Amino acid sequence: MFPQHVIARKRDGHALTRDEINAFVRGATDGSWADYQLSALLMAIFLRGMTPEETAHYTDAMMRSGTVADLTAVRGVKVDKHSTGGVGDKVSIPLAPMVVACGVPVPMISGRGLGHSGGTLDKLESIPGFRTDLSLDAYCAQVAKLGCALIGQTKDLAPADKKLYALRDVTATVECIPLICGSILSKKLAEGIDALVLDVKFGRGAFMKTKAEARRLAESLVSVGRAGGKNVRALLTAMEQPLGHAVGNALEVAESIACLRGEGPADLMEVTFALGEQMLVLGGVARTEAEARGKLEGVIASGAALAKFREIVAAQGGEAGAIDDPSRLPQARLQRAIAAAGDGYVQEVDAMGVALAALRLGAGRAKADDRVDPAVGVSALAKIGERVSAGAPLCIVHANDEQALSEVSAMLTRAIVIGEAKVAAPKLIEELIR
Amino acid sequence: MFPQHVIARKRDGHALTRDEINAFVRGATDGSWADYQLSALLMAIFLRGMTPEETAHYTDAMMRSGTVADLTAVRGVKVDKHSTGGVGDKVSIPLAPMVVACGVPVPMISGRGLGHSGGTLDKLESIPGFRTDLSLDAYCAQVAKLGCALIGQTKDLAPADKKLYALRDVTATVECIPLICGSILSKKLAEGIDALVLDVKFGRGAFMKTKAEARRLAESLVSVGRAGGKNVRALLTAMEQPLGHAVGNALEVAESIACLRGEGPADLMEVTFALGEQMLVLGGVARTEAEARGKLEGVIASGAALAKFREIVAAQGGEAGAIDDPSRLPQARLQRAIAAAGDGYVQEVDAMGVALAALRLGAGRAKADDRVDPAVGVSALAKIGERVSAGAPLCIVHANDEQALSEVSAMLTRAIVIGEAKVAAPKLIEELIR
Repeated sequence: MFPQHVIARKRDGHALTRDEINAFVRGATDGSWADYQLSALLMAIFLRGMTPEETAHYTDAMMRSGTVADLTAVRGVKVDKHSTGGVGDKVSIPLAPMVVACGVPVPMISGRGLGHSGGTLDKLESIPGFRTDLSLDAYCAQVAKLGCALIGQTKDLAPADKKLYALRDVTATVECIPLICGSILSKKLAEGIDALVLDVKFGRGAFMKTKAEARRLAESLVSVGRAGGKNVRALLTAMEQPLGHAVGNALEVAESIACLRGEGPADLMEVTFALGEQMLVLGGVARTEAEARGKLEGVIASGAALAKFREIVAAQGGEAGAIDDPSRLPQARLQRAIAAAGDGYVQEVDAMGVALAALRLGAGRAKADDRVDPAVGVSALAKIGERVSAGAPLCIVHANDEQALSEVSAMLTRAIVIGEAKVAAPKLIEELIR
Repeated sequence: MFPQHVIARKRDGHALTRDEINAFVRGATDGSWADYQLSALLMAIFLRGMTPEETAHYTDAMMRSGTVADLTAVRGVKVDKHSTGGVGDKVSIPLAPMVVACGVPVPMISGRGLGHSGGTLDKLESIPGFRTDLSLDAYCAQVAKLGCALIGQTKDLAPADKKLYALRDVTATVECIPLICGSILSKKLAEGIDALVLDVKFGRGAFMKTKAEARRLAESLVSVGRAGGKNVRALLTAMEQPLGHAVGNALEVAESIACLRGEGPADLMEVTFALGEQMLVLGGVARTEAEARGKLEGVIASGAALAKFREIVAAQGGEAGAIDDPSRLPQARLQRAIAAAGDGYVQEVDAMGVALAALRLGAGRAKADDRVDPAVGVSALAKIGERVSAGAPLCIVHANDEQALSEVSAMLTRAIVIGEAKVAAPKLIEELIR
């Protein structure tokens, strides 16, 4: 099967056969298709689309391009969570130990990703000693022992996706629902899970800018996941302002610990509980969302969730003491509060503006090989609807460099808009797609 | 300017700016765009199209990607001819000396091309000693001296096209009018010409299968050529059966010599005269087609056209004696006539079937680095409408290999269809686009 014939069929608007899709994904994996042929087909897919059947075959072929983790030895319904990503989204960190503490195993392999603030892996690595580079065997063993492991993508997991994602990134073929769907699900299905709960975000701080786009992606993810034999549900959640009060790696770990202590910010807890409820229901340990909510609150109140997190951190080489004393997490050299210019209500906290500020401080990556500074970021961020008085702090900037601190102060002053009108906190959870 | 931003703009259906097109073509030339980025943009162009302005900018940028030959020292309006290619299409070989003998300089740089039968360069190289690899300087000097040079594309001529054509060939992005237009015209405009006559072929033996497609390409070529300041005209001609009686390199040179002696086949001469008439009118040596026709017939009758060809062959190192004695051209070891199975009229001579037979004999290339056999091919091909009796020859196969000879005999028996109905010779020249 010549690559150019497969490309021509998609170019002309035909649905590719399972064999053609297999040839494409195999070509990406073993190098038998040249990069320029892969990218030509990616662009044809971007512009011509894929049917649900094609997307399911594509996802399956990507999953099978490498090792599929075998967690059959682990008892229980294994459930993971995936977020399409947002500013201040550290939900996975408190959520995983909470769900595991309720009796549902959570095998979680995350991509490092390219983002304005670090990914889940970068955040966890701000805990001194914490290792995310476990082998697939060590991962399976830890899931069997503790019910959870939080690791990075290994080379042998969906290698076709790694190849294709790198190409999409530089050929303007990222924002394509079938391709996004295949990329997310192939990696998640290769983890060895039985069910998956997705947090599909929309808004100015999210990848999907509108609710309609997010709904299309969520529906596709749910139906393709189901075609792959997994129970998949998705929440549509708003991402206009950052989630919680902290953006930055160690700062977000500290906020995650607060969540596990029962001191988490309302918006962050709302999303964490909503996702956890679905995970418990899919995991078969609760019949209703209300029952699940009770259990999740219970493991926070009892300290079981925090204990589980401590256990995971220790198992992965992290300094468990930092969980009880977050001041042992990396601290930035400079800290400065941004003061409100006048009295009023917070009208807007532009998530993208805050994200760019965090990036400028060094909390994220502009290029794949950039080093992330674990200590820097923004904390104590004001929330939309909050009443503030002139001179009161709107947030605290954590920086390791004067120049960045001063630039970021100006960026944040623009991102946080104060006005006279009373405004309500925005609605966060829009819809459950199942 | 990031490649992915330019790609995204075309992907989203926008017209690219001149600067964006320049960045793309420069990227292809100097390697600053990766191949996978070039091919992603080529696919986006294939599916989204280009406006006439974009196509003109693209053509201009491709032309300027290398050296543009300077023929200002050559007196007269320099006119070239280009054909989109057909089976048995050797028109350039008799046409160039005829037009030059009438006083119009013809600078002609041909691509070698990938085809079922060889390109013009392969045909000329079947003349012992004939060299087509002249430098651009030697080419300019010969055009100045003899009014004509027939050479192959040099490395310094439109290198962006060479790069992009090779990519298009393996990424299913060949059949796209703006890209075809840029590829053809960039090379032709870089030759140093003032005007160009195009033979745009359609039908089963041509690249464009329908007249409508061919007309769209012709109109685009004429308008983009005009935007580049050149006078361009195009003839639409049918390509259902091979042109003339011969297909194969040396066999086509022999037929070309017959044309120059006044003994050419009617269909081949019809196309040659029609193109020559336009060249003489554009070259300013005839006011009307009829006047031009008279001059072209005159240089054949006087022997001036044949003498000019002899002169060109000698200047490029070829054995001029072969022009007067075509038996000195390479001869195949085996020759076999294909006999008609019954009485009747030739209903059909499938050009593509004949082309594939010639390819099987070794007259053309399946891959770019295949070696062409100059001697093999098919001669004395019957024409549609001809009356034949059982046992009479429909063509003669020239082969250097028994196995190929026997396979090709079967192929040709299928390609030449005999029936009882009287049929007229098909119409050849459909339209002049100016």
